[in-house]
Amino acid sequence: MSHKLLILAQDKDQYRALIEEAQLEDLEFGTQPADDVDIVLGEPSLIKAALGSLPALNWAQSIWAGVEPLLDPAARRDYTLTNARGVFGELMSEYVIGYLLAHERKIFQRHEAQKNKLWDESDTGTLRGKTIGLLGVGSIGAEVALTAKFFGMNVRGYTRSSETSTHVDRYYHPTLESDSLLSDIQVQQQTAVLQSFAHGLDYLVNILPNTKDTRKIINADLLNALPSHALVINVGRGPAVDESALIEALSQNKIAGAVLDVFEKEPLPKDHPFWTTPNLFMTFHTAAPSLAKDISTLFFENYELFLEGQPLKYQVDFEKGY
Amino acid sequence: MSHKLLILAQDKDQYRALIEEAQLEDLEFGTQPADDVDIVLGEPSLIKAALGSLPALNWAQSIWAGVEPLLDPAARRDYTLTNARGVFGELMSEYVIGYLLAHERKIFQRHEAQKNKLWDESDTGTLRGKTIGLLGVGSIGAEVALTAKFFGMNVRGYTRSSETSTHVDRYYHPTLESDSLLSDIQVQQQTAVLQSFAHGLDYLVNILPNTKDTRKIINADLLNALPSHALVINVGRGPAVDESALIEALSQNKIAGAVLDVFEKEPLPKDHPFWTTPNLFMTFHTAAPSLAKDISTLFFENYELFLEGQPLKYQVDFEKGY
Repeated sequence: MSHKLLILAQDKDQYRALIEEAQLEDLEFGTQPADDVDIVLGEPSLIKAALGSLPALNWAQSIWAGVEPLLDPAARRDYTLTNARGVFGELMSEYVIGYLLAHERKIFQRHEAQKNKLWDESDTGTLRGKTIGLLGVGSIGAEVALTAKFFGMNVRGYTRSSETSTHVDRYYHPTLESDSLLSDIQVQQQTAVLQSFAHGLDYLVNILPNTKDTRKIINADLLNALPSHALVINVGRGPAVDESALIEALSQNKIAGAVLDVFEKEPLPKDHPFWTTPNLFMTFHTAAPSLAKDISTLFFENYELFLEGQPLKYQVDFEKGY
Repeated sequence: MSHKLLILAQDKDQYRALIEEAQLEDLEFGTQPADDVDIVLGEPSLIKAALGSLPALNWAQSIWAGVEPLLDPAARRDYTLTNARGVFGELMSEYVIGYLLAHERKIFQRHEAQKNKLWDESDTGTLRGKTIGLLGVGSIGAEVALTAKFFGMNVRGYTRSSETSTHVDRYYHPTLESDSLLSDIQVQQQTAVLQSFAHGLDYLVNILPNTKDTRKIINADLLNALPSHALVINVGRGPAVDESALIEALSQNKIAGAVLDVFEKEPLPKDHPFWTTPNLFMTFHTAAPSLAKDISTLFFENYELFLEGQPLKYQVDFEKGY
């Protein structure tokens, strides 16, 4: 039995070349949505737009980690959705370590000093002995934890319940199921866990997916619980940050700085206060690019399993949202 | 028998407090050069200035790695000189990785984009698969090599003859002894080894001590052998770089950038062209600060050996210069 693949991505030619080169068994290429297309590889929003014209869709492989458009409750869920995972860990780790070192080494400050012809030999900081808190410890968080350990940091991890990475020194979990209706006291208990996680952190890094439990998890309470020298990094999803609370925390020097790769709305509107918030550094959703070579390799592995009728890797649970 | 220690350093009070706390056996403190001082701990230039007033000097522990002032052939050499080693590797690694990531992640470019309210999602680079060349693989170079391997880089090492680090994929050595008088053909052979070391490097990092063989080792020949996308980092000693050759290479885009922590003359004179050379980033000798806690620990170890009459660690060979 032959399969037909449709590629829906900006760099579809690059994907097609890589996949053709691999000469996968029983695979043909479609060039537009059609009745006989059973596999789609691409960007979630483009896949969503095509769902109505793909009656035979059996499997969709997202080239990104975030698949929000396909989680729309009004959209079809009669196919297997897999996302990109396992390929972003190293890129994200490089990003996080890069910005932690830019902070400790005063990379921007020294560059300013140079422009002003000032010999700035002020003290430099080090990663060794610092404490990093990871909101989310999936495959990316585990890689960041490993790298943090390499540099001699203490590592805390906040997850729903999993404790899979051995590079996390201490785990923190919400006390309750996400779908319970919380009483005021229960909400206070949840907050207390996050506060205890945040207490004394040098760095807070969000890597959580976007779900109803993670929205605005970085809020005024959490930011107030951080020491004033703390640096906050968001490489997860934009909605995890309460934007006005972050602006207030930075403007009042409640924390030392923030590095944001993702935002509620992208590209960030020109009139958004983030552009000029003090000690806020933006990287425009570039932390972990989906490299066609990496994603293709992941697709090859899953196609092999698909042919064998085995469960695919990195399946997304439409209910949980990741 | 009791020993008397003189501390000659800007932060001598901090050192004294740390050493007093350790309650070392048979150790008294002097407060100025005197006939009965047999141990000195401090900065090389301050030690040199006191050499004439320390007739009983038996051992001098430098708090820095570089000890040039004490290598002056006109100065006394009738004591054991030890320098600071083993404590800088992690700090230097953090520095090197920090600036490699600043380069790959376009940290300065994205900051400029933010100032101009531009959503700069241009491609980002990664350390994985890149090739780093280390000029000098002592204890610091070995630590940088280990870190480079952690991030998936290929590692080349240029050393006089040692091949101690197992994290170096390929070693390069000068073909001749340093003290030989070289013929023109032999000079060409030396150059050929360095050219082959430099060929195809993504990053070149100098960690060599200052000796007659390492002066201007980063010269026009070496810079010309590098790819145009290469980044040069000097955390060794200022004289290793031929300053005008580097300015020319950067001004003509023969290399992508340079990060300098050390200079021929420090602080750098206000009229030096480095302040405004394009793609040159300076860090004002802050890459690996001598942390009093680290250096004191090293002193404690050596004092133990000193009491036992054992050879001290990190002895400097006055002839070799390191």
